[in-house]
Amino acid sequence: MIPGHGQLELPAERGEDAAVRHVVILAGGGGTRLWPASRPWRPKQLLALGPQRAQGTPGGTAHGTPGETLLGATLRRVAGLDTLIVTAREFAAETALVAPGARLLCEPAARNTAAAVGWAATVLAAQDPDAVLAVLPADHHVADEAGFRATVDRALALAEQSDAIVTVGIRPTRPETGFGWLELGEIVRDGGARDVVRFVEKPDLATAQAFAASGRHLWNAGMFFFRAARILAELERCLPALAAGLRELAAGASPDTVYPTLPSISLDHGVMERTPGLLTLTGDFGWSDVGAWPQLAELHAADEQGNVVAAGRLMALDARDNLVYTDDGTLIALIGVAGLVVVRSGDAVLVVPRVRAQDVKELVRLLDAADPRGQPAKEPR
Amino acid sequence: MIPGHGQLELPAERGEDAAVRHVVILAGGGGTRLWPASRPWRPKQLLALGPQRAQGTPGGTAHGTPGETLLGATLRRVAGLDTLIVTAREFAAETALVAPGARLLCEPAARNTAAAVGWAATVLAAQDPDAVLAVLPADHHVADEAGFRATVDRALALAEQSDAIVTVGIRPTRPETGFGWLELGEIVRDGGARDVVRFVEKPDLATAQAFAASGRHLWNAGMFFFRAARILAELERCLPALAAGLRELAAGASPDTVYPTLPSISLDHGVMERTPGLLTLTGDFGWSDVGAWPQLAELHAADEQGNVVAAGRLMALDARDNLVYTDDGTLIALIGVAGLVVVRSGDAVLVVPRVRAQDVKELVRLLDAADPRGQPAKEPR
Repeated sequence: MIPGHGQLELPAERGEDAAVRHVVILAGGGGTRLWPASRPWRPKQLLALGPQRAQGTPGGTAHGTPGETLLGATLRRVAGLDTLIVTAREFAAETALVAPGARLLCEPAARNTAAAVGWAATVLAAQDPDAVLAVLPADHHVADEAGFRATVDRALALAEQSDAIVTVGIRPTRPETGFGWLELGEIVRDGGARDVVRFVEKPDLATAQAFAASGRHLWNAGMFFFRAARILAELERCLPALAAGLRELAAGASPDTVYPTLPSISLDHGVMERTPGLLTLTGDFGWSDVGAWPQLAELHAADEQGNVVAAGRLMALDARDNLVYTDDGTLIALIGVAGLVVVRSGDAVLVVPRVRAQDVKELVRLLDAADPRGQPAKEPR
Repeated sequence: MIPGHGQLELPAERGEDAAVRHVVILAGGGGTRLWPASRPWRPKQLLALGPQRAQGTPGGTAHGTPGETLLGATLRRVAGLDTLIVTAREFAAETALVAPGARLLCEPAARNTAAAVGWAATVLAAQDPDAVLAVLPADHHVADEAGFRATVDRALALAEQSDAIVTVGIRPTRPETGFGWLELGEIVRDGGARDVVRFVEKPDLATAQAFAASGRHLWNAGMFFFRAARILAELERCLPALAAGLRELAAGASPDTVYPTLPSISLDHGVMERTPGLLTLTGDFGWSDVGAWPQLAELHAADEQGNVVAAGRLMALDARDNLVYTDDGTLIALIGVAGLVVVRSGDAVLVVPRVRAQDVKELVRLLDAADPRGQPAKEPR
């Protein structure tokens, strides 16, 4: 049996020589494909995108109350574990509202995930040289929360026991070309772990189809598990400039001075793709990255006409397979349209076919170019 | 030459035996096809649907400031003539804002246009037995305002001179099946007037196509010109119960008591269709009834992609031939859609193909049925 599998280890309960398990939640923001709900000042993890009860009426109106924020759901899934949230300074206040009492590490500048994880590992290692970390994104959705928690506990135990870098790869449900994929080795190791043979970022459709059918490829979901000391050693090897900055932080230098100078690179590219001997556990718990509007249909039930009310109210007349979201009580009235995403949030309404929802990114770019004041940058420091 | 043609006759200027010309503007409200902008508490004539300056930017964003209300434009077109506005009591305050200083006749209850016109004629005849009236809807659009004014002046002069009931029929530009049509006699009378042989309400498409091609059929636009004494005599003949009520009002009875008991019928059905000897002048001044969202495209210029911004802001990415309207500064962002009407007003967003915009009426009916509180009736008296 793997120690710690299926049970909580609270800091107060740990024994003399058991490492403390910590969850590091990456809540730095970014991303534009959920515009107009997501904005530079309101990132995806702070949106109430989670499921909520929807009620249909005979007249065809569906009502939905706002759901849980993705960050709130993430925190709930790891309840009982010591948690550190790494976020941007401008999201600190709203993050604290969602996570009252949580420890926040506020980045003075956005420097991507390698720096964020490195800083968190530095802080936690200073408190506890044996710290074992679960690094989790703040803005994903999980349907099977018990299954997720069991997998996280197994991955933490494996990282603690083996000193390996462990990932949780998601069992694919479609030939997704927008994700990174993990290719697994043949041998199944202790605890069901398998080696990662290689990373393949955003494959073409034929490759993705082969991956989805192979049984040896998983989606990279950005979840990583390791001892703090192990990831700091890998950062030293792969990203020495970053590691040097982290040593300055460990020695007491001001984050305001050091952090903005750190190299900006993702943990995936900077470390994971260059580190042999990664272990992976297979995750199969109804995961979604909620990466664009159509993915919200995975989180919410459709009505008999195929319409999905992610939030707000819908009146549909001869309208099918649409997805609507409004965060201000707006009624969305649709007549004779199909397959659309219709969103009302803030000062904007978005109408786009579900199959073209990826183009929201391009629209936001055009909007920034046409009217920079319409999408203010992060507040100046 | 017809007396008064092309010149203004202000009350102060009239001679000893010249009748005073009065404009009666029917501003009672009603209609649901411009929902969600038009509501029971905000009828079409009070909406800022008129043209406004639109500016395109290289990035594809079009901005529009709110236009003139249809009532405001109607008043401006008859500036200089004595004007009486008949409206519902619940619209009095907002009507007075649009028409400061105008005389208002506030209906205690909605009883359709025969009662409204009869009441106005009764009031004006009591002040001036020779009064000549131009009855005009408050919620239509006219592109050629000088042409409109010249036609109104001709029609008033004709009514004054001949004691006839005169209409202005609109030269058709399409085989419209939603309108009433006037069939003209062969003989052209003094001042270019022609007899109305019959009314045809909402013909089928084949009939409408024949009408549009005949040169002898005009659209009924609800504009009527007559001496007050003449219309009161016709009401006596065609609608004696209504005429009896009007006599009570003339004798000093309270409108609150009498008006709600009057028969509810349109002037078209109640009088015009039953009165021989009607004369018609042909109007050809870019008229629109602004009867549904697609008609707004007649009032506003389209951009190079065929998109029309009736009000508000549009960001279009690969989107064509759409019509957008927002009265609260909302940005409408469209990606990859064509031929849609997208409206944001009040608590609602509407998305409907232009070709199905007539179904808005049905949607509002469903909405009323599903949630009566969503569309409150006129305030109780």
